Amino acid sequence: MATDEFDIIRRHFNRAELAFTRAGVALGIGDDCALVAPQPGMVLAMSMDLLQEGVHFLPGSDPYLLGQRTLLVNLSDLAAMGAEPLCFTLGLGLAPQPDSWLERFSAGLAAVAAAHDCPLVGGDLIASEPHRAATTVCIQVHGQVPAGAAIRRSGAKEGDLVFVTGTLGDAAAGLRVLKGQLQGAGDDLQYHQPLADAFFVPPSRVAAGLALRGQATAAIDISDGLVSDLGHILQASGVGAAIALEQLPLSPAFRACIDDTEQLPLAVAGGDDYELCFTAPAARRDAIEAALAAIDVPLRCIGRIEQQPGLRWTLQNKPVLLKAEGYNHFRPAGSDNAEKS
Amino acid sequence: MATDEFDIIRRHFNRAELAFTRAGVALGIGDDCALVAPQPGMVLAMSMDLLQEGVHFLPGSDPYLLGQRTLLVNLSDLAAMGAEPLCFTLGLGLAPQPDSWLERFSAGLAAVAAAHDCPLVGGDLIASEPHRAATTVCIQVHGQVPAGAAIRRSGAKEGDLVFVTGTLGDAAAGLRVLKGQLQGAGDDLQYHQPLADAFFVPPSRVAAGLALRGQATAAIDISDGLVSDLGHILQASGVGAAIALEQLPLSPAFRACIDDTEQLPLAVAGGDDYELCFTAPAARRDAIEAALAAIDVPLRCIGRIEQQPGLRWTLQNKPVLLKAEGYNHFRPAGSDNAEKS
Repeated sequence: MATDEFDIIRRHFNRAELAFTRAGVALGIGDDCALVAPQPGMVLAMSMDLLQEGVHFLPGSDPYLLGQRTLLVNLSDLAAMGAEPLCFTLGLGLAPQPDSWLERFSAGLAAVAAAHDCPLVGGDLIASEPHRAATTVCIQVHGQVPAGAAIRRSGAKEGDLVFVTGTLGDAAAGLRVLKGQLQGAGDDLQYHQPLADAFFVPPSRVAAGLALRGQATAAIDISDGLVSDLGHILQASGVGAAIALEQLPLSPAFRACIDDTEQLPLAVAGGDDYELCFTAPAARRDAIEAALAAIDVPLRCIGRIEQQPGLRWTLQNKPVLLKAEGYNHFRPAGSDNAEKS
Repeated sequence: MATDEFDIIRRHFNRAELAFTRAGVALGIGDDCALVAPQPGMVLAMSMDLLQEGVHFLPGSDPYLLGQRTLLVNLSDLAAMGAEPLCFTLGLGLAPQPDSWLERFSAGLAAVAAAHDCPLVGGDLIASEPHRAATTVCIQVHGQVPAGAAIRRSGAKEGDLVFVTGTLGDAAAGLRVLKGQLQGAGDDLQYHQPLADAFFVPPSRVAAGLALRGQATAAIDISDGLVSDLGHILQASGVGAAIALEQLPLSPAFRACIDDTEQLPLAVAGGDDYELCFTAPAARRDAIEAALAAIDVPLRCIGRIEQQPGLRWTLQNKPVLLKAEGYNHFRPAGSDNAEKS
């Protein structure tokens, strides 16, 4: 591998495809700080994610896909606030890797950065502790949103409808594919690659988040599973919800590859979907559906906000019980934690 | 240890001593993003540092000192730009630790955060990969600086004087103390603790950075050693420098504990000082000395910027050679790298 951190930064990170200039970024890589200026009237939205080999991604993962994924999961937090991406920073704790790893990792980052006009502006590069080296990636994204217009978790009101974008559970199923846990046969095998792709290349819902400004009353991105993340909205808003299980959006690949009895628990608890879950008054439903259809984002109304705290499930309008919990990093081994790579 | 990440965040991080409110922070911990608004006419300065157990700090380090240190070394980057601290984010990859570790770590963070009116506003908490767990701390600090007023590395001009704050080499000597590498005897032992303190509790030069706005032409904080960091100013500014070795500020503790022949190489290459190195026209020397004296920051003029690129050493006005290089994370083992914890 390359032997000089400044050389690594110059060759793989401080290059035009990744560390490009844009309005609002006054100074990028190469000084003690980056300088960022949101437009007048805008505030800066920021979110950080720390990902580690063996926890969030499998050792031996394709570095291009890893680069894409790490930036996409961060952009998902901007989407959930209705913020427009501005730039990101990268902290990389690097286990020994060949030069080609860095080349592909930064190319994956660059593809997502370019698609979102969101350049790399700074960060830190270290060689991980040699005897316990696990590659660690810390990304912080920065976006801008008009003051007062950010979509919080706390705005859901009784009577609001609950929506999700895209489909649920594909990434959790894809993780099973990547771990070799999904036994398929015959025609089902055609679905394995799309499911694995769903894990590595989560959808970008940034445009959807922008379209929801002024429409959604609360929003979150689904990283730990619908149960956990909708739960955050309910808790922050001091409300509850009833979710109609038959309305959960499931892909054909998911339906084909996951046993019937497992589909609903995995769809609501599996995590890593990076779809948006949001609430809005019923009166805005038509406008929201039209706005997301115009940008080709699939949308499904899955339930309704209620005054009574807690999350309730229904099937064909009848209450049902469903055992499912979101991922929690500190659950003791052997407990009934949802899986995570 | 605690078994719920949200519970850990609530008890140890999202508490009034650490995640307090202040002007400019519109939204802190608890949503998809934090929202930060620099004052009108100000831009946001941001800097990230990734620190790992076994690379940047010794296993078994006092978590209170570690918390202080990780935030102080980041604030040092704001100081070097002349930026006023606003807030910070924290990514924590946690190896198994007792609850008391988290309590003391967050107390160390809180002490520095309060002293700089710089609250924690968000971040990410993960359990490190269990078989290769090394605690990893990623901090990003955010400050504000009037547009156009940030002190860059690139503004040094021929004839400018070169200054450093505080003393050099104490942290490098302190690291030797912590590693048990410093053999002392008799009266010298009294100096070991102050040197170790210099490593763990680097000085805050934030006030000095603010005082240097409009005065310094270039600045950097000394993290990898004077040779390396002054080298960045010289390279960015397209100039060179002559440094008078007899002017290097060395503490009594450093002089007492480090062999005479090692003092100069260690002082210029040892790293971890987190003092400011800056340049300014000679005409501003008196004003700068008065400004820093007013806030009790020791200051020393150590040389002069020259047109000819490169770094030259003098001793009593005669050119001398000094073999010293700053720390580089990717130097192969066995090469002549400066030490780092």
